[in-house]
Amino acid sequence: MKKPDAPELIIVGSIGIDTIETPREKRVEILGGSVSYACAAASFFVKTGMVGVVGTDFPPEHRALWEDMGIDLAGLQTAEGKTFRWSGVYEENMDNRRTLLTELNVFESFSPELPEAYRDAPYLFLGNIAPGLQLHVLEQVHSPKFVLIDTMDLWINIAREKLVEVVGQCDMLTLNESEARLFTGAHALMDAAKALLAMGPQFVLIKKGQSGSMLFSKNGIFLLHAFPLADFKDPTGAGDTFAGGLMGALAESGGTDEKAIRLAMLYGSVTAAFGVEEFSLERLATLDRKQIDARADLFKFMCRID
Amino acid sequence: MKKPDAPELIIVGSIGIDTIETPREKRVEILGGSVSYACAAASFFVKTGMVGVVGTDFPPEHRALWEDMGIDLAGLQTAEGKTFRWSGVYEENMDNRRTLLTELNVFESFSPELPEAYRDAPYLFLGNIAPGLQLHVLEQVHSPKFVLIDTMDLWINIAREKLVEVVGQCDMLTLNESEARLFTGAHALMDAAKALLAMGPQFVLIKKGQSGSMLFSKNGIFLLHAFPLADFKDPTGAGDTFAGGLMGALAESGGTDEKAIRLAMLYGSVTAAFGVEEFSLERLATLDRKQIDARADLFKFMCRID
Repeated sequence: MKKPDAPELIIVGSIGIDTIETPREKRVEILGGSVSYACAAASFFVKTGMVGVVGTDFPPEHRALWEDMGIDLAGLQTAEGKTFRWSGVYEENMDNRRTLLTELNVFESFSPELPEAYRDAPYLFLGNIAPGLQLHVLEQVHSPKFVLIDTMDLWINIAREKLVEVVGQCDMLTLNESEARLFTGAHALMDAAKALLAMGPQFVLIKKGQSGSMLFSKNGIFLLHAFPLADFKDPTGAGDTFAGGLMGALAESGGTDEKAIRLAMLYGSVTAAFGVEEFSLERLATLDRKQIDARADLFKFMCRID
Repeated sequence: MKKPDAPELIIVGSIGIDTIETPREKRVEILGGSVSYACAAASFFVKTGMVGVVGTDFPPEHRALWEDMGIDLAGLQTAEGKTFRWSGVYEENMDNRRTLLTELNVFESFSPELPEAYRDAPYLFLGNIAPGLQLHVLEQVHSPKFVLIDTMDLWINIAREKLVEVVGQCDMLTLNESEARLFTGAHALMDAAKALLAMGPQFVLIKKGQSGSMLFSKNGIFLLHAFPLADFKDPTGAGDTFAGGLMGALAESGGTDEKAIRLAMLYGSVTAAFGVEEFSLERLATLDRKQIDARADLFKFMCRID
């Protein structure tokens, strides 16, 4: 049984120091990483525990920011060496980005270990790290109600077998459009989703960036737009923020069925739409739950047919 | 007052003989044109009158097909000469198409004249033709309840002033994403929509192809996905089928408010999704209203958040 003060949701993923260039602005050495975005988003809904690694160079103000957001850091390791670095540049329309630099640093020898208090958490989000590490985390939790797994093209290419193994043990898989095609060899998303469901998960969530997302299950398809924004500054971490918000909202609801997931996706999408308004966690750091709820209501109205 | 047997909805636009090449198939001299697709789609919902022109070479079986679908052809002119020809090729992903040939033929001297029975129709769809001709049609109708206008990049570029004049007299404008940007000079769709609403129409409907569509009004935004298809054969006319189905469903409902338009968009989208399953009107010709309603119910379920 989970202790009353233990986190409801555990998220594992990368923590990075990012340098990001958009057509209008360049920002050097800002806080990034999948678990940073995902935990920040989830923290609006439930107590969330972070599993990740930073180096001894990690700025204390970033850790303080996470703590201010109420994120549980008992699963955060500090290792001798430098924190993971990533650098990328967005092209004119912000649709494409090029990676300029990836320095794994302490992330290279990362072995996620869950504190005792995390092992009874009902909700688990395996963020985008090596499938072997995702499996290692999964083996440490006792009997989670719902596990979401994210991945990327790299693991599909170099660790496909291990990825298939871990995906088969999860309730829901999320990936983007091109990754779904790469993983299955199917061009049509509906065929790709069918092949992914056959690997074991009950739900497959395909992210389509500014075109929204599609949830596939044995019940059929759910379609969700991206929340429309007049402008945004930095799309980095949008997918992680979406998934983190989704898992936070789902954990808050206590549900695991499609109805609960549909509503949780709406909250994830709204949270992600706030996140991209500024670089790093800058917008999420000033956001409050009332703003999320107000935008969620507006979004529901935008999607209502009758 | 409209006579009881007169059409509820009048649509004006082009009629063409198309030659279309997709990555998998080439079809020569098939029935096309905006008014052909739009009237076929609308005919599932209300009695629809077609305003257009064909040449003396126009195959009688095409006319028979329209009649079988219940389309009123009193507004169809036959002029000495050849019917409008269009030829295009779709690239690998079907997202881009190149026009290979455009022969205006009898369309060049087309002057749309409405039969007396059409002039009291409550619903009017000004399909994509020269803005001067759209205005000429608008001047012939007495007091329509609702007028939708479509346009394209060509008219924005060469007849902008006339286009602004006619748009200002319509209830709703529809165009695609890039046309909305071209017409207004705004990059963000929300800014473009605001500028288009300022031209006079109450509603602006921006089509985004496989990403769906967005309806803008003073009430805010409505977001509609495209109905997801595993496969399709030919996207030609999808926008016209969407708009025709929308106007047919709206005319059937008798409404002109946003609630009625939202539901009509759903029907338009579903009808368009059937249309692209085959070339030309081949799928629409075998379709029945029950199939449309069944898919509309499925689509509603796919979009339902709570």
